[in-house]
Amino acid sequence: MNTKVAVNGYGVIGKRVADAVRAMPDMDLVGVADVATDWRVRTAVGLGITVFAANDDAAAGMTRAGIPVSGTLAELLAEVDVVVDTTPKKVAAANLPLYRSAGVKVVLQGGESHATTGHSFVAQANYATAVGRDTTRVVSCNTTSIVRVLGALQDAGLLARARGVLIRRATDPGEAHQGGIMNTMVPEAAIPSHQGPDARTVRPDLDVVTIAAKAAHTQTHSHFWTLQLTRPASREEVLAALRAAPRIAFVRMADGLTALNTTVELMRDVGRPRGDMWEVAVWEDVLTVEGDEAYLTYQVYNEAIVVPETIDAIRALTGTATDGATSIALTDHVLGMRREFLPAAVPVRD
Amino acid sequence: MNTKVAVNGYGVIGKRVADAVRAMPDMDLVGVADVATDWRVRTAVGLGITVFAANDDAAAGMTRAGIPVSGTLAELLAEVDVVVDTTPKKVAAANLPLYRSAGVKVVLQGGESHATTGHSFVAQANYATAVGRDTTRVVSCNTTSIVRVLGALQDAGLLARARGVLIRRATDPGEAHQGGIMNTMVPEAAIPSHQGPDARTVRPDLDVVTIAAKAAHTQTHSHFWTLQLTRPASREEVLAALRAAPRIAFVRMADGLTALNTTVELMRDVGRPRGDMWEVAVWEDVLTVEGDEAYLTYQVYNEAIVVPETIDAIRALTGTATDGATSIALTDHVLGMRREFLPAAVPVRD
Amino acid sequence: MNTKVAVNGYGVIGKRVADAVRAMPDMDLVGVADVATDWRVRTAVGLGITVFAANDDAAAGMTRAGIPVSGTLAELLAEVDVVVDTTPKKVAAANLPLYRSAGVKVVLQGGESHATTGHSFVAQANYATAVGRDTTRVVSCNTTSIVRVLGALQDAGLLARARGVLIRRATDPGEAHQGGIMNTMVPEAAIPSHQGPDARTVRPDLDVVTIAAKAAHTQTHSHFWTLQLTRPASREEVLAALRAAPRIAFVRMADGLTALNTTVELMRDVGRPRGDMWEVAVWEDVLTVEGDEAYLTYQVYNEAIVVPETIDAIRALTGTATDGATSIALTDHVLGMRREFLPAAVPVRD
Amino acid sequence: MNTKVAVNGYGVIGKRVADAVRAMPDMDLVGVADVATDWRVRTAVGLGITVFAANDDAAAGMTRAGIPVSGTLAELLAEVDVVVDTTPKKVAAANLPLYRSAGVKVVLQGGESHATTGHSFVAQANYATAVGRDTTRVVSCNTTSIVRVLGALQDAGLLARARGVLIRRATDPGEAHQGGIMNTMVPEAAIPSHQGPDARTVRPDLDVVTIAAKAAHTQTHSHFWTLQLTRPASREEVLAALRAAPRIAFVRMADGLTALNTTVELMRDVGRPRGDMWEVAVWEDVLTVEGDEAYLTYQVYNEAIVVPETIDAIRALTGTATDGATSIALTDHVLGMRREFLPAAVPVRD
Repeated sequence: MNTKVAVNGYGVIGKRVADAVRAMPDMDLVGVADVATDWRVRTAVGLGITVFAANDDAAAGMTRAGIPVSGTLAELLAEVDVVVDTTPKKVAAANLPLYRSAGVKVVLQGGESHATTGHSFVAQANYATAVGRDTTRVVSCNTTSIVRVLGALQDAGLLARARGVLIRRATDPGEAHQGGIMNTMVPEAAIPSHQGPDARTVRPDLDVVTIAAKAAHTQTHSHFWTLQLTRPASREEVLAALRAAPRIAFVRMADGLTALNTTVELMRDVGRPRGDMWEVAVWEDVLTVEGDEAYLTYQVYNEAIVVPETIDAIRALTGTATDGATSIALTDHVLGMRREFLPAAVPVRD
Repeated sequence: MNTKVAVNGYGVIGKRVADAVRAMPDMDLVGVADVATDWRVRTAVGLGITVFAANDDAAAGMTRAGIPVSGTLAELLAEVDVVVDTTPKKVAAANLPLYRSAGVKVVLQGGESHATTGHSFVAQANYATAVGRDTTRVVSCNTTSIVRVLGALQDAGLLARARGVLIRRATDPGEAHQGGIMNTMVPEAAIPSHQGPDARTVRPDLDVVTIAAKAAHTQTHSHFWTLQLTRPASREEVLAALRAAPRIAFVRMADGLTALNTTVELMRDVGRPRGDMWEVAVWEDVLTVEGDEAYLTYQVYNEAIVVPETIDAIRALTGTATDGATSIALTDHVLGMRREFLPAAVPVRD
Repeated sequence: MNTKVAVNGYGVIGKRVADAVRAMPDMDLVGVADVATDWRVRTAVGLGITVFAANDDAAAGMTRAGIPVSGTLAELLAEVDVVVDTTPKKVAAANLPLYRSAGVKVVLQGGESHATTGHSFVAQANYATAVGRDTTRVVSCNTTSIVRVLGALQDAGLLARARGVLIRRATDPGEAHQGGIMNTMVPEAAIPSHQGPDARTVRPDLDVVTIAAKAAHTQTHSHFWTLQLTRPASREEVLAALRAAPRIAFVRMADGLTALNTTVELMRDVGRPRGDMWEVAVWEDVLTVEGDEAYLTYQVYNEAIVVPETIDAIRALTGTATDGATSIALTDHVLGMRREFLPAAVPVRD
Repeated sequence: MNTKVAVNGYGVIGKRVADAVRAMPDMDLVGVADVATDWRVRTAVGLGITVFAANDDAAAGMTRAGIPVSGTLAELLAEVDVVVDTTPKKVAAANLPLYRSAGVKVVLQGGESHATTGHSFVAQANYATAVGRDTTRVVSCNTTSIVRVLGALQDAGLLARARGVLIRRATDPGEAHQGGIMNTMVPEAAIPSHQGPDARTVRPDLDVVTIAAKAAHTQTHSHFWTLQLTRPASREEVLAALRAAPRIAFVRMADGLTALNTTVELMRDVGRPRGDMWEVAVWEDVLTVEGDEAYLTYQVYNEAIVVPETIDAIRALTGTATDGATSIALTDHVLGMRREFLPAAVPVRD
């Protein structure tokens, strides 16, 4: 029997999780809950998704707005095994008692603190420790990428220390009509920024410091890493370590993929829904290794990268797959996750 | 038997035309021709599209780059009924002799001048006059939108005179790593800008003047019109005229669709390929009518709006549909063109 | 004896008004009042400006922050003839009773409604009606520019009707790290936007409708006008009317001043404080006249254009100049206002 | 007798160098040479600067355009002791033979390679080695900042190794209407980027690697450094080393200077010509020291930072000051260079 899933919060992450749940053969999306009455929730209706109101006030407002509300969040929770909370930062913590009283498993997102659930999740790093738990927190987009990439190098015994500069897009494309920065850059006031310590909630073995700033665009986040290796290594060794880990893809400047927007355009061209990129995109030909130091640059498509992790977290909590590799393989197959986006060069015809 | 189509130039427009041709039940895409060796053409290969080299030099370069080239443009032309030329501005004119000697019908794009073909095309305006011609030019994105919208009002006997300010996005998202403007606006040096006169190549009955400027974004073009009506009219009359024409859709500020990026986000959410919007999106609740004047604002998704027109142009030239309405209906059905993107408000449950 | 002036609110407008007051031979800046404790107010201290706290709470906070506070707003008011209120929108109205009880004249800014003072001010339009009043409101930057330019054409008997599209910069450069729009454009939801009606509070004889939108930059506002003239006129007649009015300057695309940022750069190069442009900058060679229609484009440097108007308003209220032309001439001379920014072409040497 | 100076190339750097030369008590600006006929050169005329044509063709064109040309570059060179070449990248190398035949000293800018002159210059690092030379190259803005800041730490015996991420503004504000990037970021394809090695042309003792990318704004460059210290040190030690070096200023997030644009606004507010900042602006309260690692962030105002270095280079080549400290002190006094931009917190009044 399929796992019954609710999504609370139909925003940037929630709508993508909802689509991914609908695509999985072992899950059913029972419904999404929200408080909005605008085009966002009405789009869900148009897509055939069952909509619930996150609370009684919202139910009244949504009904007045002509949105076919199928009940409240409490009613939705009564019908599901798991709820994925994708509400705005710090709202989820307040929802926890309701979830607990409903007896459902809970997947939170990275806007919440580690302490909220006591467990932070990246599938390839610690799936096993989440199996059977009541709650977990899928870490944020930046942190997920750090665990994927640095974790791969750590697993290969190559990484001694990582110092990174994270240049974040200032806001999401769909929110860019409000609250953005214009023609400037905004460094975070404190070093380290939270992403380094946050990665250590999942991989305490990482020696990582992050410096962050917001840049004036709405595309992907960019990470620039200086890596102290455990020993002098070859570029191929570093690449091999990255290729051994899931959910890391490679792009190349030499192919004309020279800027954030070109990779985003590529995602649209290969037919990704919403142009999403669930993989961390490492610029393969920018990667440089000098003795025992490596320099690494990659893109993080912040709106989508945690979606496969969330799917895996659902399976871990419900125990429907006890093995991380099995869950990852299924998720990645259904979504169409890739290592390369371009066909390899082929022999020419005679 | 299906119409055999070639696309010369696999860029912003060409890749979309290629996809649309592949979707049409009465057309076959024989191949696309290009000169590039980067990710763009290799993406076509990945999508299963047969790739040709636009000339011998390109063939050598593409082959060296490992792209499986199936022949040259001349060879491609020998296999098709129609070529759609989506090469960069002013290149197409130089290609015309080759096309003519190959005996194929030719659809050019709006970067070329009207004189190149002697016929400029917008399906709803003058499909009939293109039937059986050897060549036509699908006018540019802005001009297409003008003909669709102002033409609808002219057909309804409502429009006396239109004066418009066209704020263009400065470049396409996929090209935004080069050649853009930053934190400024660039007005065109001459009034009228070319779009007004260009619309008159299709609808000489329009009294239209356009002023244009480039703004610092990569989203849709925006048109702001002041319309002198032939008589005092009601807002509903103006809307009814717009609703009677094809390929005009409506969005509303009241739904939270308050900026260019929100509509673009909506396109992604409703599942449009590449987030494309083939319709002109009129802000219904911004439309204002005061006596015999109307004020109208709409969005033009410049990368996609001419795609359905190009499909219709193929049918007109080849005579596979002699009636514009028939072709438009087929094109729009296959693409999934819409009048509204959100479900209507529905009765609430008890 | 010089007029004693207070400025309440040391922000984007306030700091410029303070500088202008200090430059005027017939005025003394007694002090500025604010509530902030950050670099902005401390810069005032560094410039030798006497700083007051806008209220008792602010006094405590500013003192704690080490800012040498010379007293409260009430104490400042006791020492001045006039207060210029440049506090954020809608705050000034709440300050009015305090100003009245202090018996000082009051100049408000365009963020307040006309009703607050019952008199709206643009020096060249209605200086005389402000003479001796207790209060007036200097209209906003966009409205000021409309009154200057359209008023000039109306005075020349040339203007029948004006329909304009106002593309606003989304925020000020110094505020661009928060609250901006990114890679989008945001049309105002209602037509007409407020600027047209607002201009009629100063010039009720104008037949003007405005459509407004925010664009993704922090430079000047841009106005694009379609003007119905009272009769067919020559381009030179229109230009002559503009040249007859004060505070309108001319720039030309032919000189390479082709975009908002080039004019801003020019202001810096000619030595303007903060790069300010107090004039409306009309693109002379973009101006087009066709029969009885004219098309006009100009730039509005929103941070500075109301500064000279504010200086004149001080003189009008205090009656220190009973004649608008006299006040305008003095203000413009001291500030260094210009009609042209480039030297005229000069005869070549032999 | 004052040193007679020519500036060849009246662009972003040239116009600032011209102004600085005019301000120095020991220098005379004989004239500037250029090829342009647009507003830029005409602004120089308006400022009372004598204009020459960079070659005969330019002379004809400039004369036709009505610009009062006082002769050609060759004639200008005959009247001066030193020429500062601020022509576009790679043009200066071609000018060298002309300069040599005229027997003038030559200051090139950082767009040229080190090999062109065999000497690269940053005043505080190697003034002495330039004294009496015929030519030197003032290194680029980014490199200058690296030498100033890292050199200060190296001189204090604190710096073992520096790894930096340089996020460059994509273009200058005055050029932003062409050739910029929009809503994206563009990493450089190769690591290390040229700035690290370039700094070693001045300070070969630095162990420095740089990674660079362009961001979508026109403000200052931002450098984010991870510094390996020679030993565990305190934050105060690091700050003391920076305070001991010239041309480094401090700003603080705690003062509300939280983004690139706020510092730029501050420069305008304190009355800097064109809003220029000649200092490297270190965010003091972002500086973090952990054991033997330090993390450092600063702003580089690329249009102005090399101007004082260029003035010093003139004195070094001509030997008018044989001591770097003397030249630096004079330059900095005349320009008004500062360590702090805000008044220190002062005791409150009773």
